[in-house]
Amino acid sequence: MLPGSHRAAGLLDDAALVRAMLEVEVAWARVLGVSLSLGDWVPSLDPVEVEAAGNPVLPLVSALRAKVSSPVHTGLTSQDVLDSALMLLARGALERVSADLGRVALALARLADEHRSSVMAGRTLTQYAVPITFGLKAARWLVGVLDALDELEVVARNLPVQCGGAAGTLSRVADPVASAAAFAGHLGLVWPGMPWHTYRAPVTRLGDAVVRCCDALGVMAADLLTLGRPEIGEVREGFVAGRGGSSTMPHKRNPVLSVLVNSAALQAPGLGARLHLCAARAVDERPDGAWHAEWPALRALLELAVVAASQAAELLEGLEVRADVMARRAAEAATELLAERGGGADPGAYLGAAEVFVDEALKRWSAR
Amino acid sequence: MLPGSHRAAGLLDDAALVRAMLEVEVAWARVLGVSLSLGDWVPSLDPVEVEAAGNPVLPLVSALRAKVSSPVHTGLTSQDVLDSALMLLARGALERVSADLGRVALALARLADEHRSSVMAGRTLTQYAVPITFGLKAARWLVGVLDALDELEVVARNLPVQCGGAAGTLSRVADPVASAAAFAGHLGLVWPGMPWHTYRAPVTRLGDAVVRCCDALGVMAADLLTLGRPEIGEVREGFVAGRGGSSTMPHKRNPVLSVLVNSAALQAPGLGARLHLCAARAVDERPDGAWHAEWPALRALLELAVVAASQAAELLEGLEVRADVMARRAAEAATELLAERGGGADPGAYLGAAEVFVDEALKRWSAR
Amino acid sequence: MLPGSHRAAGLLDDAALVRAMLEVEVAWARVLGVSLSLGDWVPSLDPVEVEAAGNPVLPLVSALRAKVSSPVHTGLTSQDVLDSALMLLARGALERVSADLGRVALALARLADEHRSSVMAGRTLTQYAVPITFGLKAARWLVGVLDALDELEVVARNLPVQCGGAAGTLSRVADPVASAAAFAGHLGLVWPGMPWHTYRAPVTRLGDAVVRCCDALGVMAADLLTLGRPEIGEVREGFVAGRGGSSTMPHKRNPVLSVLVNSAALQAPGLGARLHLCAARAVDERPDGAWHAEWPALRALLELAVVAASQAAELLEGLEVRADVMARRAAEAATELLAERGGGADPGAYLGAAEVFVDEALKRWSAR
Amino acid sequence: MLPGSHRAAGLLDDAALVRAMLEVEVAWARVLGVSLSLGDWVPSLDPVEVEAAGNPVLPLVSALRAKVSSPVHTGLTSQDVLDSALMLLARGALERVSADLGRVALALARLADEHRSSVMAGRTLTQYAVPITFGLKAARWLVGVLDALDELEVVARNLPVQCGGAAGTLSRVADPVASAAAFAGHLGLVWPGMPWHTYRAPVTRLGDAVVRCCDALGVMAADLLTLGRPEIGEVREGFVAGRGGSSTMPHKRNPVLSVLVNSAALQAPGLGARLHLCAARAVDERPDGAWHAEWPALRALLELAVVAASQAAELLEGLEVRADVMARRAAEAATELLAERGGGADPGAYLGAAEVFVDEALKRWSAR
Repeated sequence: MLPGSHRAAGLLDDAALVRAMLEVEVAWARVLGVSLSLGDWVPSLDPVEVEAAGNPVLPLVSALRAKVSSPVHTGLTSQDVLDSALMLLARGALERVSADLGRVALALARLADEHRSSVMAGRTLTQYAVPITFGLKAARWLVGVLDALDELEVVARNLPVQCGGAAGTLSRVADPVASAAAFAGHLGLVWPGMPWHTYRAPVTRLGDAVVRCCDALGVMAADLLTLGRPEIGEVREGFVAGRGGSSTMPHKRNPVLSVLVNSAALQAPGLGARLHLCAARAVDERPDGAWHAEWPALRALLELAVVAASQAAELLEGLEVRADVMARRAAEAATELLAERGGGADPGAYLGAAEVFVDEALKRWSAR
Repeated sequence: MLPGSHRAAGLLDDAALVRAMLEVEVAWARVLGVSLSLGDWVPSLDPVEVEAAGNPVLPLVSALRAKVSSPVHTGLTSQDVLDSALMLLARGALERVSADLGRVALALARLADEHRSSVMAGRTLTQYAVPITFGLKAARWLVGVLDALDELEVVARNLPVQCGGAAGTLSRVADPVASAAAFAGHLGLVWPGMPWHTYRAPVTRLGDAVVRCCDALGVMAADLLTLGRPEIGEVREGFVAGRGGSSTMPHKRNPVLSVLVNSAALQAPGLGARLHLCAARAVDERPDGAWHAEWPALRALLELAVVAASQAAELLEGLEVRADVMARRAAEAATELLAERGGGADPGAYLGAAEVFVDEALKRWSAR
Repeated sequence: MLPGSHRAAGLLDDAALVRAMLEVEVAWARVLGVSLSLGDWVPSLDPVEVEAAGNPVLPLVSALRAKVSSPVHTGLTSQDVLDSALMLLARGALERVSADLGRVALALARLADEHRSSVMAGRTLTQYAVPITFGLKAARWLVGVLDALDELEVVARNLPVQCGGAAGTLSRVADPVASAAAFAGHLGLVWPGMPWHTYRAPVTRLGDAVVRCCDALGVMAADLLTLGRPEIGEVREGFVAGRGGSSTMPHKRNPVLSVLVNSAALQAPGLGARLHLCAARAVDERPDGAWHAEWPALRALLELAVVAASQAAELLEGLEVRADVMARRAAEAATELLAERGGGADPGAYLGAAEVFVDEALKRWSAR
Repeated sequence: MLPGSHRAAGLLDDAALVRAMLEVEVAWARVLGVSLSLGDWVPSLDPVEVEAAGNPVLPLVSALRAKVSSPVHTGLTSQDVLDSALMLLARGALERVSADLGRVALALARLADEHRSSVMAGRTLTQYAVPITFGLKAARWLVGVLDALDELEVVARNLPVQCGGAAGTLSRVADPVASAAAFAGHLGLVWPGMPWHTYRAPVTRLGDAVVRCCDALGVMAADLLTLGRPEIGEVREGFVAGRGGSSTMPHKRNPVLSVLVNSAALQAPGLGARLHLCAARAVDERPDGAWHAEWPALRALLELAVVAASQAAELLEGLEVRADVMARRAAEAATELLAERGGGADPGAYLGAAEVFVDEALKRWSAR
């Protein structure tokens, strides 16, 4: 019922998590020398059993053992399976986010280039400052997005497999390190050399990168909401039949995508903070609640980012930029915009390094 | 897939929200003089349309208008319907939480009374301090729970209907105040005299009360986790076949309920903070993202509390208290526990006002 | 160096805390039958000793014992002194906040009344909706402020003394309950019947009320920032020579007070959340870090509110409202503002219950 | 009055900030061809003027202009000076944190090596799991610390200068890019190619790294607090005369350093989240409150980390490890610890890859 959640359909929901856990068990079985072919089989898990175990892994393993006769799961602990499965979900989510951020970046690069000379009022603390160009604005958003994208890709390349057994010693595994490495290989994850049951930087770093995406998209959405106010009217969300209507006012064309992206950016930081808190409370060899508070935050955060990136891509690709309105306003506000300069009539003659910075951003974009 | 979420089944999910929104529309139709009988009818909403509208109300109204010929929704705005529906969900959730907190309080009152003389080591900053009784400990938890319960009941009695129309003036409603009051009456909610589209204290106050429940349950769970460590062994979660097992270690009996309640308490504060942030950003006549970030936090918070209160009730009702272990330890640690007193051998002779405070807590409990 | 912190000078800083701790020790000495007259004496505390004790109380008691020969502090624990001292600081801070919120409320009541017929565009999701009045806007802000004020006053009347001794049993105090009650009486605080070393609802409830103040002020500031954008120009911060200037642009008149109040509202929710987290982690008879994380959040939160309320009072008292600009814009946007109504030219004829709601808010205000 | 704040004395307080701002102005004057020699001169800033300007830069520039006749500050905006000054403070703070984390890492590496065969009970969800070694535990903490250290060093090498002028175009600067680069060079900061007035990833990335330090230290402190409980007694904070005493109980030896580090870890995530929230609200060319909410969070977070890292270093260097207690407990709990294995009497014979992981951590440590 969350607006836009269909954009993440199948990526992060319970069914996806069960499939990912099965994939993890199959990979581990392969490490154990067992080839499982489960076809489309997916067990349905009894929520009472999930709670009794404190997590869904034990019921899944029970169902799996009822189905197949070969030994499975031996040597792993629940957290190995669930952490690894979450990393698989993260991988899928990050791929989607990266693809959509790529679309956003392309759209912004075009806007930055096209509007490198579109003069507009610069605004600081809500008031007129000196002139800028819309190209510069787009370039600044672009840098934020490119930076988020770079960081996401580093994180995505380093998503780790979890493999530690009951208390992080792989006590039941014959050849621990080789097994863990093979396990990682089968799943396309990285074996980080040690389990990370209570060392949660892999999770917080993932979370921080995702929050940073939401920050970068959110500040853009917030700016677009301001620029799209009817009194300002310098941009407008592209028209899509049926979108942005009101249940009561026929003329309404609400900037729905901007609103939803803005909304995501208000949600993400608190979820990221929860991941850090859980990291700081990941006590003993496996913790007594902090881990359980981590999964829902991680899934919610990834879903937010998948949805917001997709919405932002559509938003930017369809954005209407009213360079004429910008120019007119800049001309009307020339006295204020040029006060720093000591006066003048042409805001376009006082743009400083605006174009240099546009080029700098475009250079970074094309270097990718 | 969240352990324990079945305890909130049907209360706060999407289907419950759609039913509540229908209930709101039916009540409003009644205000308009229309009697709708929808039977079991529930529309299925297209997620693309939900996003296009920015919320599920417009698609619901469209479906409703396709089904019934009489005028519906006229004069309301989406936020009127969704806010009111969320208050209906909150009412159901708070009833459940209150009932379960009542069970927790009863169990704690019994423990406080039964163990008013069960001497145990007092611990501060993790180290031995002076003696206390387990009855005192239970009494302190009880006060927290009673207090949370009192506050919840005040909140539950004051859940408001939302009724403001497009921009909070009820511009399309013939007799605005009477209509709003009747609307509230039909739904069993309170008409607060004005719309609260951008005045969100009703939401933050609800949220804060729910977080306070989670705090009260969480601190108890955290204490039980410590006292139930095998080296301490002064309490133990009641044995339930199949619960608390490990996927790898047959002897394991994990304190699953305590772990999950503890986990909830790590999650709640951040969700409550989000509600406040949204309140502070509820700009214009209806805001541009802050409202959209509020629903998921409110639903998640209510679900956490429903689940945690139910788990806590079961946990407390089944708790095994090992007064003998407590007494033995207190005796062994008598030197330290009585150092403040200047020495002695009987921790039970240095309990100060412990029993007075037990009686104080029980008095509050029986006054309810 | 925080802009505006001089508005809270002397209320919440280290010197104020030391004075409050001394006041607590003097009151307790009185309970012990000792009359201390310290005059203006204030010890300076060695930060190394503060850290060694984990808090400033032990060094303070040492200094006190070096100065006076009579027995002091006997029977209390550090947390008794610091918690009580913080409640004294809170009392002073809440008085200040209440007084300034009273000024805000008065200013808003006047604006609501004066502008009950000042038609302006209603805006939802940033776009034009139906007409409202500026009086209605002020009335909505007013309700938020009155509500915060009511809650603050309840909290202020119930600020509790802390009195529990080493582990909450008052083990060293001859007549515990009478002593605690007398202690409270001397300090003008409330004895809640039991210590609250690990039951922190008194702190979270205080914190939540303070955050709610910041929410109420913050949403108003955010609205004023939008309405004061040069393209909208419907309000303006009052001119004060030297305020709002820029280090580079001579024409600039930044809405500094609104910016700072808005900034406070972004800070408060996270601090309030920390108080809840600490409440949920207040383990054992006195906790192992959660209490230590609580003081700085409480002090920071109180300071934010004192400063923001004072700034908001000045902001509202000096606010320039441009009813002519509002009217002109509403007339220009009549087509959109009256679309719900099916057309028309006079936004002032489609105000629904705006005036009724103004009167409702004013009624609440005058009932105080 | 915060326990331990003397460990950060002079690094992050108001005086340090004023000195850093002066350093920035001097560097910029040098870019302008002016050589300022201010000696020890430090202006005292009027807090009323600081508020009137919304930040301390304008009063500082006024004082500077009153002192020197040459042109200063020309072309910069307040945010250029304050952001750059904060980066200078961050540099100093990170150096200190890194040095202390280095001490922590050394201590942990020694413990990991020394105790590679010190068998102890592994604990998961608070209950006995399989055996581990204390060396493994230290190795896991070490990996967290090394990782935090690596990330801090990357951040420290990339601390950016802020240089954008009124609205990010450097409109008043003759040769913008060369000037910005020279400015960076004079300050030992990095010129990132563009201003970052509204692109705040440099701040959130710094913040996240610092929170991650606190997470790594916090989880260690939390573990030490558990292991140091008197019923467990496997570690103990080193004895320092006068530290950890109680105001009432003579025998007390509170684990003060662990408590304070634990406390820091409860505080950091919320501050980090605020930085992200501010990043997402860094609207226009310079924002209307989000920037103002950022400085106090950044300074508070840096102070927390400086203090916690210093405390942790002292804590680890003085830690008493009771390998005998660990061994005795593991032997007593052998039945449970070896249940996974199917029984046995020697926990030391079921350590899986514990030593391999110790070597892995030590290898990383020595590779630095």
